[in-house]
Amino acid sequence: MKFVIIGGDAAGMSAASRAKRSRPEMEVIVLEQTEDVSYSACGMPYNIADADREMEDLVVRRADVFRQKQGIDLFTGYVVETIDRQNRTVSGTIGHNREPFRFVYDQLLIATGGRPILPDLPGFDLPGVVALKSLADGKRIKAYLKAQTVQKAVIIGMGYIGLEMAEALRERHIAVDMVKPGPDLLPWMPRELAGVVQAELAAHGVGLHAGHAVKAIEPADSAYTVVCEDKTLSADMVLVAIGIHPNSELAEAAGIELGPAHAIAVDRRLRTSDPSVFAAGDCADAVHVVTGEKTWIPLALRANRAGWAVADNVCGTPAELDGVAGTAVFKVFDLEVARSGLSIAEAERAGFDAVAVTIKSRSRAHAHPGARTIHVHIVGDRRSGRLLGAQMVGPEGVAHRINAVAVALHAKMTVATFAQTDLAYAPPFGPVWDPLLTAANQLLKKM
Amino acid sequence: MKFVIIGGDAAGMSAASRAKRSRPEMEVIVLEQTEDVSYSACGMPYNIADADREMEDLVVRRADVFRQKQGIDLFTGYVVETIDRQNRTVSGTIGHNREPFRFVYDQLLIATGGRPILPDLPGFDLPGVVALKSLADGKRIKAYLKAQTVQKAVIIGMGYIGLEMAEALRERHIAVDMVKPGPDLLPWMPRELAGVVQAELAAHGVGLHAGHAVKAIEPADSAYTVVCEDKTLSADMVLVAIGIHPNSELAEAAGIELGPAHAIAVDRRLRTSDPSVFAAGDCADAVHVVTGEKTWIPLALRANRAGWAVADNVCGTPAELDGVAGTAVFKVFDLEVARSGLSIAEAERAGFDAVAVTIKSRSRAHAHPGARTIHVHIVGDRRSGRLLGAQMVGPEGVAHRINAVAVALHAKMTVATFAQTDLAYAPPFGPVWDPLLTAANQLLKKM
Repeated sequence: MKFVIIGGDAAGMSAASRAKRSRPEMEVIVLEQTEDVSYSACGMPYNIADADREMEDLVVRRADVFRQKQGIDLFTGYVVETIDRQNRTVSGTIGHNREPFRFVYDQLLIATGGRPILPDLPGFDLPGVVALKSLADGKRIKAYLKAQTVQKAVIIGMGYIGLEMAEALRERHIAVDMVKPGPDLLPWMPRELAGVVQAELAAHGVGLHAGHAVKAIEPADSAYTVVCEDKTLSADMVLVAIGIHPNSELAEAAGIELGPAHAIAVDRRLRTSDPSVFAAGDCADAVHVVTGEKTWIPLALRANRAGWAVADNVCGTPAELDGVAGTAVFKVFDLEVARSGLSIAEAERAGFDAVAVTIKSRSRAHAHPGARTIHVHIVGDRRSGRLLGAQMVGPEGVAHRINAVAVALHAKMTVATFAQTDLAYAPPFGPVWDPLLTAANQLLKKM
Repeated sequence: MKFVIIGGDAAGMSAASRAKRSRPEMEVIVLEQTEDVSYSACGMPYNIADADREMEDLVVRRADVFRQKQGIDLFTGYVVETIDRQNRTVSGTIGHNREPFRFVYDQLLIATGGRPILPDLPGFDLPGVVALKSLADGKRIKAYLKAQTVQKAVIIGMGYIGLEMAEALRERHIAVDMVKPGPDLLPWMPRELAGVVQAELAAHGVGLHAGHAVKAIEPADSAYTVVCEDKTLSADMVLVAIGIHPNSELAEAAGIELGPAHAIAVDRRLRTSDPSVFAAGDCADAVHVVTGEKTWIPLALRANRAGWAVADNVCGTPAELDGVAGTAVFKVFDLEVARSGLSIAEAERAGFDAVAVTIKSRSRAHAHPGARTIHVHIVGDRRSGRLLGAQMVGPEGVAHRINAVAVALHAKMTVATFAQTDLAYAPPFGPVWDPLLTAANQLLKKM
């Protein structure tokens, strides 16, 4: 039995390790186009923030370990170019010499991940214009910061990678301007919560330029000029962080069906439209637990979990995944920002009779020293009474609190039942009525 | 309509406020034996820790506000001695003069709370022997610490009040010894987790003397001697923190049925065996969401919630409470300790085919600076596959993480489903696989 995996990142290596562990006799072949496997991609902004740390610190397990200790046939520098489903083969070329290779599979996993979106505009190919997705990207940014005198950076995009990188670059005393075409920072949030994030960025000297579409990046005297219609920004380095795109072209060319956002369509067992071919990780879609519809939310936990599930299915232990709740958390300087489930706009688009409230609560009990403000936004469905999602912002007590919402969404809990849950209370950690419960109680009144 | 409430603490004042808000024409009468209403009882250890803060800081709303702004007939210093269910009256005496009073009710709420257990042993009535439950207790301790030179304290009991007070007294540079008859600190925890708490206490200079039953407290030269069979401990102050007892005698004398631990038995609407009489707060029992059986777990959130539900029921909006999951969190110096649901011993006693695992995980991602160890213990039922409970200990990321378990317990979720939940991930806040998910995955293997 030959199990071939295209892509040696989170989903691919999770699948490879688990398959080999449960079926040591299985031939597990991983074809990875870069030299890097198994690293903490999400840790890159924090590593970049610290000039003294090596990017290699983020490597969780080296290729050698997978090869020698785990017995996985891991090939790095192997670029797969074609999947031949008729003959069950994958073929491509190796490294710079472009020597051809060809592997036969019984079961195939496509775990090709995603790549940063780079607009087709002048100047986005200049050397100081960077993106951040792979470890190689991270190394490139770090090397650039070391070799060049970077005093000013422009970040195009205001998503969570952009925000984490704004913090990282400010830590290195680099001036940061952020620019995006849309008018709103974090448009999926209510303005009240986004305003808290905006104030935090301003307090840390980050310039925000929402409502300005970048037209070009031009080389200037000693650096670059980021050109918008009605504004120019000067920078020694430009980070493009406007989102990622699933690497689904290989699958599409092989006639495999795609789902939302051109991600590879998979069922709950991670099978594509070809029953011998699985897909997992940032290249594959998922079911949203709130809507029951297909969605594409590329996140690390799902990639790892999907890799495991593919391994189980390949090894004959049927495994189905529930779906994703769209839970995400990120840190912006001293703020924690978290969400799970649908925003009110997403809920309306999905056909719910959505209603939401936004409340302010405290991170610690009445009269407990050091209490800070936590903002909570919570969304419910009038018809079914169901909880649909929540968002939170605050300097403490946000990151893990959101998990209560995630679990409630998996359970398809009503707001009324959620409002009755026995959440933890002690004065250093929150008020008697947890901010989420206060929000749920307020939402109930409106429902 | 006359709604009479015995007890002006969390449950009583929550009920009074909510009833008056929804039915302003209703006569709401609260009879409180002390002078204090509406204060953060759980905040007392943290207040005691700081000599410069006033105990009054913990008062959330003064009696005057309830009387004048909210229109509640709040009587303090009123000790209820008899409930006459036949004639629907409560009667008792006022203050030191013991003037008699008598009120007629249409609906009655018994919210008499609990009181610290004080063993009937020699010396427990000495002036420097204190307990902590009411605000008056807190004031007494604070005054004692101010008036006397307290260099050494002995705490009898090692529950969470005892532990919080150990920290508070150490903050005031008072030497602390803790003593209890049983052999184990936090016996509901596996030894591995309790060991972490024990090490934290030792690191902060708290002497632990488990396995020593106190026989007496004797006045010594300038202080007290706490006498055990085979050990004596010297102290300037002795705190008795061996648990609380529900104040259910008044109800029992009136022929109202009691439940577990002599708490007043109530149904999901908080009705006692007399349909005109409700009970809520530390004096009343509850249904455990995991076992479906009656239990008595006196905690602040439940008291507030039950007060609200009584008000709704009295006002004609039927309200049922789900029950409690036994969620609790407390801080012990730099550690967070949390639990929800059943321990393995409790699960076995309740008839489950219980199985548990204990794991170690990290509070931050691989290679993220400052990561600390989080210990997780998780309990499931082999027969139904259900999650039954979890416990966690760690220096960060514990207090709010437990809420995910609490919600799962309310949803009667299986371990398999819980293991699939989309919990939040970002490097500063945890590993890709949340410690709870890692624990659930390990537990699944064992189930």
